Amino acid sequence: MPAHPILARIHEADRLIVSESFEPLMDHYTMDAVLVLEPGREVRGRAAIREAMKKIASYFAHGLQVTQQKMQVLEAGDTALVLARTLVSAPGMDDDVREATYIYRREADGQWRCCIDNSYGHRILV
Amino acid sequence: MPAHPILARIHEADRLIVSESFEPLMDHYTMDAVLVLEPGREVRGRAAIREAMKKIASYFAHGLQVTQQKMQVLEAGDTALVLARTLVSAPGMDDDVREATYIYRREADGQWRCCIDNSYGHRILV
Repeated sequence: MPAHPILARIHEADRLIVSESFEPLMDHYTMDAVLVLEPGREVRGRAAIREAMKKIASYFAHGLQVTQQKMQVLEAGDTALVLARTLVSAPGMDDDVREATYIYRREADGQWRCCIDNSYGHRILV
Repeated sequence: MPAHPILARIHEADRLIVSESFEPLMDHYTMDAVLVLEPGREVRGRAAIREAMKKIASYFAHGLQVTQQKMQVLEAGDTALVLARTLVSAPGMDDDVREATYIYRREADGQWRCCIDNSYGHRILV
């Protein structure tokens, strides 16, 4: 079975995050996308996500690395759930392995874009 | 802040599962919904989900209980991710606490319905 097209999209998005290429990264998000910054704190929409990505890059002293160790896609029509084991690392920081949940939506142009980006998974349950 | 309407929908669906009221339960699923039966095994569509629910009820000797211990909803437009801690129990069986992931879609009639029902969460990552 060929790999789900969303997997390549996620690897591409990770490269754009690591290289701090935030303009092309925005095409990976729907206009109404939500990004979980940390449990209990979210931003909405591309403009807010782009600003948050800049701050995240600074926080990690421009050394952020993001790697998907495992991924599984469950698809229903134009909606897909990605369950991932995501390694977040940066020089001088402890590695953080997250059980991430990403929701993708296939939009009118046929492209899959992330509408809910929650790398923290169930850590947001308090 | 009022509780998200999806939370009441989930509690209602749980009651319908426990009472084996599978006809009204189907209105809680989109036509293209996917249900994860166990890691690596899924069924698609209402007819298949209804049949699977009957088998699940038999498997648990008609004593299945489903309780959501914690839930959080993340919403982006007409798509929502629910992260839950779900207790699955039945007489004579060990309790199973699952970190579940449910995806809901708000359909044209304004109703939220589940399109991806994965009570196993990251257990499907192999």
